[in-house]
Amino acid sequence: MSKAAREISEGLRQWRAEGESGDLSQCPVRGVLDRIGDKWSTLIIITLAEQPLRFGQLRRTIPDISQRMLTQTLRDLQRDGLISRHVFPTQPPSVEYRLTAMGQSLLEPLAALVRWADTHYGAIRGARSEYDQQAA
Amino acid sequence: MSKAAREISEGLRQWRAEGESGDLSQCPVRGVLDRIGDKWSTLIIITLAEQPLRFGQLRRTIPDISQRMLTQTLRDLQRDGLISRHVFPTQPPSVEYRLTAMGQSLLEPLAALVRWADTHYGAIRGARSEYDQQAA
Repeated sequence: MSKAAREISEGLRQWRAEGESGDLSQCPVRGVLDRIGDKWSTLIIITLAEQPLRFGQLRRTIPDISQRMLTQTLRDLQRDGLISRHVFPTQPPSVEYRLTAMGQSLLEPLAALVRWADTHYGAIRGARSEYDQQAA
Repeated sequence: MSKAAREISEGLRQWRAEGESGDLSQCPVRGVLDRIGDKWSTLIIITLAEQPLRFGQLRRTIPDISQRMLTQTLRDLQRDGLISRHVFPTQPPSVEYRLTAMGQSLLEPLAALVRWADTHYGAIRGARSEYDQQAA
């Protein structure tokens, strides 16, 4: 068992012990993973790593997100304390989103995940076409 | 800018350059992040870190996933080459799921993410209740 696997197993045992039913539905870390394990949240945080952005700039960078979903995800991230919203008194007022210090701290584990994705996407694409050929 | 932020920014620039439109919708890493940035996928991979599990065992560990969603997510993970499915000729036949070598390699960045969630869930819970009080 690798170090990472052992670390995760120990976490699982601890979270199960904290819940009454022994399953993971009450695990406190779940509530966090559900947010950061949401593709739009992850993408928005990654996009804001570079610089603060306005709503329209975010939409242009992630064109396949709907306006409604972007609004909702930005609100959720703000509620979690990962991003902050700044209104500037221009005409018309402009609204900017930026990572908070806690949001910045999330970039480190996310960078590791992005690095993994960058290394493995060829292998994953290969696995997908092999699976699809066998299924056909 | 932190090292992680710089690394992510450089990745973003490169992926934008690869697409024609300059946005992130064609980024090859997106197709991977969409999967690992899915809460059920992440939970299943984490749960399988400890040991191979049968369908029913997975369901008991993650009781809030529907049978249909579990079936679909397991199929997606298998298609991506992250888990493998083993059928044993018992009566009735039993089916077991386990991480592949590539799935195992994903545990390392996931462990970093879980560690982050474990460190910050108190702060996130605090931010949520503060936000809700201001909204009320």
